[in-house]
Amino acid sequence: MLGEFDIIARYFAPPDNTASMAGIALGPGDDCALLSPAAGAELAVSVDTSVVDVHFPGDAPPEAIGHRALAVALSDLAAMGARPRGCLMALTLSHAEPDWLERFAHGFRDLGRRTATPLMGGDVTRGPLSVAVTVIGEVPAGQALRRTGAVPGERLAVTGTLGGGHGGLRMWQAGGHDLEDPLLAAYLKPMPQLQAGLALRGLASAALDVSDGLLADLGHLCRSSGVGANLDMTRIPLAPTLEMTLGSEAALHAALNGGDDYQLLVSVPDTAWEEARRRCAEYDVMLTDIGHVVAESGIQGVPATLHVTGWQHFTGDGP
Amino acid sequence: MLGEFDIIARYFAPPDNTASMAGIALGPGDDCALLSPAAGAELAVSVDTSVVDVHFPGDAPPEAIGHRALAVALSDLAAMGARPRGCLMALTLSHAEPDWLERFAHGFRDLGRRTATPLMGGDVTRGPLSVAVTVIGEVPAGQALRRTGAVPGERLAVTGTLGGGHGGLRMWQAGGHDLEDPLLAAYLKPMPQLQAGLALRGLASAALDVSDGLLADLGHLCRSSGVGANLDMTRIPLAPTLEMTLGSEAALHAALNGGDDYQLLVSVPDTAWEEARRRCAEYDVMLTDIGHVVAESGIQGVPATLHVTGWQHFTGDGP
Repeated sequence: MLGEFDIIARYFAPPDNTASMAGIALGPGDDCALLSPAAGAELAVSVDTSVVDVHFPGDAPPEAIGHRALAVALSDLAAMGARPRGCLMALTLSHAEPDWLERFAHGFRDLGRRTATPLMGGDVTRGPLSVAVTVIGEVPAGQALRRTGAVPGERLAVTGTLGGGHGGLRMWQAGGHDLEDPLLAAYLKPMPQLQAGLALRGLASAALDVSDGLLADLGHLCRSSGVGANLDMTRIPLAPTLEMTLGSEAALHAALNGGDDYQLLVSVPDTAWEEARRRCAEYDVMLTDIGHVVAESGIQGVPATLHVTGWQHFTGDGP
Repeated sequence: MLGEFDIIARYFAPPDNTASMAGIALGPGDDCALLSPAAGAELAVSVDTSVVDVHFPGDAPPEAIGHRALAVALSDLAAMGARPRGCLMALTLSHAEPDWLERFAHGFRDLGRRTATPLMGGDVTRGPLSVAVTVIGEVPAGQALRRTGAVPGERLAVTGTLGGGHGGLRMWQAGGHDLEDPLLAAYLKPMPQLQAGLALRGLASAALDVSDGLLADLGHLCRSSGVGANLDMTRIPLAPTLEMTLGSEAALHAALNGGDDYQLLVSVPDTAWEEARRRCAEYDVMLTDIGHVVAESGIQGVPATLHVTGWQHFTGDGP
């Protein structure tokens, strides 16, 4: 049986992790990791917990569980326009099965390499499977994208497409297991929109990531900014194959309420719109304007049948 | 039934949290919190997960569970000589009971106030009770206390007393519930040795916190530094009432192997010893020399009957 120190040493602290350790004075293995912030930078920090059978299916491929746990945390850095500096993982496991751990660590570390997010430290404890990932990013002081800056008249826009997370969840529940499928990939291996976040810094006046569902997260943005929104249903970018799989009405419902998409929702002044689209296109990111900010609170333009609140843990509200 | 946003707003983001928010550009409520590091500082970061019935009894007072979850994480900052700047909490709950949450939050926040560790953000998810706390601290560049600097001939010393964590666990298991009892208090409401960590910066050549048991953690320190140790059993400072409660042999066993004490173990050159003791005394912290560092690997001076490896999750080794 593997002990916790064995697990950390074997799967999470191998030498190649140090390759991306620039600016990290001390990596895993001491009481804390040490990070040297860039001069004039603010640190952006966030934590996200992924719990088995709440946030991901227990029988999902271990690589996908590892990838996803880091991806959903990095999505919060993307939403602030922050560049990743490192992460910490608190892994809780009911048993330590080497093959599972190897594959889980591979998925986690592979995304870490692709996004320059070294694993700086963490702990391993015994209990029902869950992964709490803390991400640490950096942003020039005063330039972080917050939720509070949206102004009436601005365009509301989203990166990529919506509804894939919910569509993929449905497919998984129906027995689909092909990770090449775009919906299953969107659900199990979402990509945090880090490049888009950096590209939109200085252009968007407010931003967040769409994790609870477009309408729920738009509601958060509107309340934080003290504004409302008017959406154009014909402009909502649906995930590829979603309409074909669920039908038109359910596809739009999934895009509005489904959650788990990890795209960015931003408010952009008209004057910055073309530049915002151009910069995103440089990174192959589609940016679609789906409505605009209004002074009156509430969200207009959504038929009543499509309007449910996003998923909330505990209450169980949601699609 | 409370939703996750209600829980965060009601228990973890009330206004008085902002009182200690100096240097935090943005607290809870956005995608990330933002922190402004001091010029020339390194950030020390660590995460510790406390799982119900693994790290604490599920029927412990909720205040103690909240206190303890933060305390064990802060102990890692203490061990680096870092000053706390803030923390993030990933709370997983099976159900949201307002009275329990109120008391849990009180314990967590009360220790946060006493140690100037504002809660910068977090998340709340549904699942079996666990609390992953990420702490962020600051230390002048190059001055962190690491595990790697111990040199043969130096004194090994511990803050406070040992064995209280294990003694308190035993008392709790035997039905004791009076938190005024020194052993139960040591187990359920340990105090991170932050002042001692700051006091020993620049004096100790190596440090870590005693969470797995003195012998196990001394083993970590020795391996990291490439040295060994010689302990004097007559110098081990036992927790008050421990000997009376467990008997002499079991008390020493608990002090050596019990874990959960959250004292600091340091290596101090002879030339710095009097100053180290004096500085700790200024904060009412007892510093006791319990042996010295030797060149040969391994730990000498411990009778075989008292020598077991410290607790490890998964393998289940331990007292």
